[in-house]
Amino acid sequence: MSSTERRFVISLGCPDRTGIVSRVSGFLAEHGGWILEAGHHTDPTTGWFFTRQEVRADSLPFGLAELRERFAEVAAELGDEAEWQIHDTAEKRRAVILVSREGHCLHDLLGRIGSGELDVDLRAVIGNHPELGPITEAHGIPFHHVPFGSAPEAKAEAFEQVRELVEAHDPQAIVLARFMQVLPAELCQRWSGRAINIHHSFLPSFAGARPYHQAYERGVKLIGATCHYVTAELDAGPIIEQDVIRVDHTDDVPDMVRKGRDIEKLVLARGLRSHLEHRVLVHGKRTVVF
Amino acid sequence: MSSTERRFVISLGCPDRTGIVSRVSGFLAEHGGWILEAGHHTDPTTGWFFTRQEVRADSLPFGLAELRERFAEVAAELGDEAEWQIHDTAEKRRAVILVSREGHCLHDLLGRIGSGELDVDLRAVIGNHPELGPITEAHGIPFHHVPFGSAPEAKAEAFEQVRELVEAHDPQAIVLARFMQVLPAELCQRWSGRAINIHHSFLPSFAGARPYHQAYERGVKLIGATCHYVTAELDAGPIIEQDVIRVDHTDDVPDMVRKGRDIEKLVLARGLRSHLEHRVLVHGKRTVVF
Amino acid sequence: MSSTERRFVISLGCPDRTGIVSRVSGFLAEHGGWILEAGHHTDPTTGWFFTRQEVRADSLPFGLAELRERFAEVAAELGDEAEWQIHDTAEKRRAVILVSREGHCLHDLLGRIGSGELDVDLRAVIGNHPELGPITEAHGIPFHHVPFGSAPEAKAEAFEQVRELVEAHDPQAIVLARFMQVLPAELCQRWSGRAINIHHSFLPSFAGARPYHQAYERGVKLIGATCHYVTAELDAGPIIEQDVIRVDHTDDVPDMVRKGRDIEKLVLARGLRSHLEHRVLVHGKRTVVF
Amino acid sequence: MSSTERRFVISLGCPDRTGIVSRVSGFLAEHGGWILEAGHHTDPTTGWFFTRQEVRADSLPFGLAELRERFAEVAAELGDEAEWQIHDTAEKRRAVILVSREGHCLHDLLGRIGSGELDVDLRAVIGNHPELGPITEAHGIPFHHVPFGSAPEAKAEAFEQVRELVEAHDPQAIVLARFMQVLPAELCQRWSGRAINIHHSFLPSFAGARPYHQAYERGVKLIGATCHYVTAELDAGPIIEQDVIRVDHTDDVPDMVRKGRDIEKLVLARGLRSHLEHRVLVHGKRTVVF
Repeated sequence: MSSTERRFVISLGCPDRTGIVSRVSGFLAEHGGWILEAGHHTDPTTGWFFTRQEVRADSLPFGLAELRERFAEVAAELGDEAEWQIHDTAEKRRAVILVSREGHCLHDLLGRIGSGELDVDLRAVIGNHPELGPITEAHGIPFHHVPFGSAPEAKAEAFEQVRELVEAHDPQAIVLARFMQVLPAELCQRWSGRAINIHHSFLPSFAGARPYHQAYERGVKLIGATCHYVTAELDAGPIIEQDVIRVDHTDDVPDMVRKGRDIEKLVLARGLRSHLEHRVLVHGKRTVVF
Repeated sequence: MSSTERRFVISLGCPDRTGIVSRVSGFLAEHGGWILEAGHHTDPTTGWFFTRQEVRADSLPFGLAELRERFAEVAAELGDEAEWQIHDTAEKRRAVILVSREGHCLHDLLGRIGSGELDVDLRAVIGNHPELGPITEAHGIPFHHVPFGSAPEAKAEAFEQVRELVEAHDPQAIVLARFMQVLPAELCQRWSGRAINIHHSFLPSFAGARPYHQAYERGVKLIGATCHYVTAELDAGPIIEQDVIRVDHTDDVPDMVRKGRDIEKLVLARGLRSHLEHRVLVHGKRTVVF
Repeated sequence: MSSTERRFVISLGCPDRTGIVSRVSGFLAEHGGWILEAGHHTDPTTGWFFTRQEVRADSLPFGLAELRERFAEVAAELGDEAEWQIHDTAEKRRAVILVSREGHCLHDLLGRIGSGELDVDLRAVIGNHPELGPITEAHGIPFHHVPFGSAPEAKAEAFEQVRELVEAHDPQAIVLARFMQVLPAELCQRWSGRAINIHHSFLPSFAGARPYHQAYERGVKLIGATCHYVTAELDAGPIIEQDVIRVDHTDDVPDMVRKGRDIEKLVLARGLRSHLEHRVLVHGKRTVVF
Repeated sequence: MSSTERRFVISLGCPDRTGIVSRVSGFLAEHGGWILEAGHHTDPTTGWFFTRQEVRADSLPFGLAELRERFAEVAAELGDEAEWQIHDTAEKRRAVILVSREGHCLHDLLGRIGSGELDVDLRAVIGNHPELGPITEAHGIPFHHVPFGSAPEAKAEAFEQVRELVEAHDPQAIVLARFMQVLPAELCQRWSGRAINIHHSFLPSFAGARPYHQAYERGVKLIGATCHYVTAELDAGPIIEQDVIRVDHTDDVPDMVRKGRDIEKLVLARGLRSHLEHRVLVHGKRTVVF
């Protein structure tokens, strides 16, 4: 559902037991909370319960701060392990995009942001090559060119510069839109749960470099793309979204690259949207996407 | 989730207002009800609220009859228009299948029932042609051949015979598995919400006769199938499930028939499964499929 | 296959008979023609034969003009009804795009053209509203705003102006990228085989206005888009490409509009690409897309 | 196209050079050969040319034996490496199916064969468990139960018995329909190009045992199936066909197993059909599927 009213988005994960839904919905009902969308899920393997609720902000008699205070009491009853967040849709999320030379994902995101389809405050685009500067600036977004040398120290310095540029905006989403550089473990840690990558294969197949070449060599009949959270282990983070497209023997590597781009764009846009709407709850290596 | 424990399945539709989820989940929590799966949905166009809950039967201190009694009190608070049902997964649903000469959907359903994938008590198969008798009986299911004349009275008599054969089993599902005969309005009415048809097109395109020929003539690039509840208006009942498959200029009508069969089988099996698991809530011409 | 060498693209349709492939390929072999891609198809319903061949330009001892002269002799042997064309991939095709207010298809095409993925000389974008002017001009493409009144004469005048603007470029492709105005029959006729529309439904379902609203009302489980040649009969021209995306009860009309846009963009881009590469052969209401 | 006339199917692979299509089609035209379907493909990586032609048998003035003799002369001109085959659609292909306990693929194939959709002479079904005997025999097909011990020698003896049972029929297709036993290298070699396996994952992801468990652990958003030729390297043979289906966080392993079965059935049926119609040309690890 595509609500436009201001909402509070509550997400919660905790060990499953009887009465959680009742406790949470009872708390909301008690204060007149009008639930616009509600999702519940229990993972039978881990015994973990997940919920996400969208409540009309104007149906509650208090604001975000007090909602958080009061909800903290509810969550406290659900055990020490309970993890929860409450977001206000009136607070626009900030994003920074990292790119290299290939522009299709960036073009796509700029178009979606420009048309209002993707509701995010894009603060900056950072490229290790200068090529995508003009299109970025044509959309009124600042572009920073940070050249990456190949020597380890040059790289480390460049990453330090990227880190500063990114963190100046305190973004909720750091999007690696075909960035083509492996993030150092320290940045994976700092940006955990906020850094989102698009990998141009259907993971776990064809992790690492040149996945379309790998796919061609193996002779697969479908190629895909994967949007996932970045973790220290390359291309192994929790998956948010995936999709595929059919190829056949008439498709050589450049054809795969071309067809694959359409899937990369779609998968990244869907994954980022889910992330921005707080629909993704991570538990171990798996995600719940409400 | 594919639970195997005995569950009570509660489904409810009523005008939306604040506190319904709280009231329903509070009722369940009060009695220790362990919710295995819960779905909620509000239709913003009609202002109607829908929910479906699966509760472990052994988590409640009472049985089906008392649950129904007690839940009736809860539902009464939700307004006169509220419609609800509670099913017990321990009570196997009964089904009757109507067929003509084409056997692919019947074969598929028999295979799924035989392997235990589709949990239903298939009481009889009724055919207006005798061809599918042997395979039906090889699976241990009674087969009735009811010949349909072309004269209106002969047809009416045949339908009367079908009605009796069907209703002898009081089935929760009456499956038209490529039956190729238009049900009289009176039967559509009697079997409302229980008669399920598979139509071999992506409705509303190509309703009526010879949909693959229509699709070929129009030159579409995808063909499909639609599983829907049967209503008096031909091929216009509420849709439960649809899917499509790609075709191109190399596919003539027999190719479309062949490729389409695979989609018909899948779509009917998925639609029937949702119906049998009480996942389908109908509201006007639209369905909520939890 | 994604060749980058200069090629001659031969397409031919004629009544089927023995020896056509041999005659055409024999002609090419005789002159040393190196075939990079070849497609053949016989339509069993109409008895019509279609072929499309890509030949390396540098493998033939003559140029386009002489190839056409010599091929005319071959085609003459295949009967009076034979229709054929030869295109030179070195001659860039010219296109004009017509838009209204919705920019997603235009954004997508501009991105593909800008990155070199779609090889076309976009000469102008014409809008009946001014909104898409700035983004068009940011890509270095001229934009013409032609306001459309609602009175019949005002509309006729506006179309006359559009006609002049379009025909000044003698384009091989006139793309209605969500133009939202019905072309007059005379323009359909003049631009036959060159005017390409994207309709936001899976035709023949939901032709005409507000297809997503129609789809929502009908409760379909998949929505789609159709790229077709424009003919005088609204939304009934030969289909080049179609695709669909799954929706469910949680999707209201704005959700369908949003999800549908992704399919519209893809389907239009694929259809236009096939058209520009001379892959589409029209026969009656159907297309062969090699 | 779904022809029912008797046809000769010519397939050829050889190093690419100018004039091959002309030579082959010229040979056919010279004798009045009526081509019903023709496919050509050049692999730009390996420089290898592939073609497959279906010719109406009654359009040629000679039979299969003479066609082979005469075509041998044509092929000889195309170099020593040329590999070719000619099949007669009047000669029904023989198949043997190997199964274990899971019946969904067997059920599906029996249904397709019984309805005439899949045109093959199924000579026997061999199971390492007895469960699928009755359904096989209900379709009038002999069933052989060959128990497999767990000791290496018992296994070797069982495989020797399977080999004898299979080779007694000299089958063109040996179908491992969820056989769950790894073929010894020697049988892979003997049955090269004839043994077809269905693996229940989207290879190369999740090769080996329990692929749905692997998929669940990794948290992928699509699961798939792969039909491939059996080679000595486990799950690494040339891929004939693949497909996928969407899953989400609500699907546990049993749900994946159930949804995956539908894809396994489809992918195996499509792959086997392509094999039986001589549409699959293998070159290294990749396939051309006309």
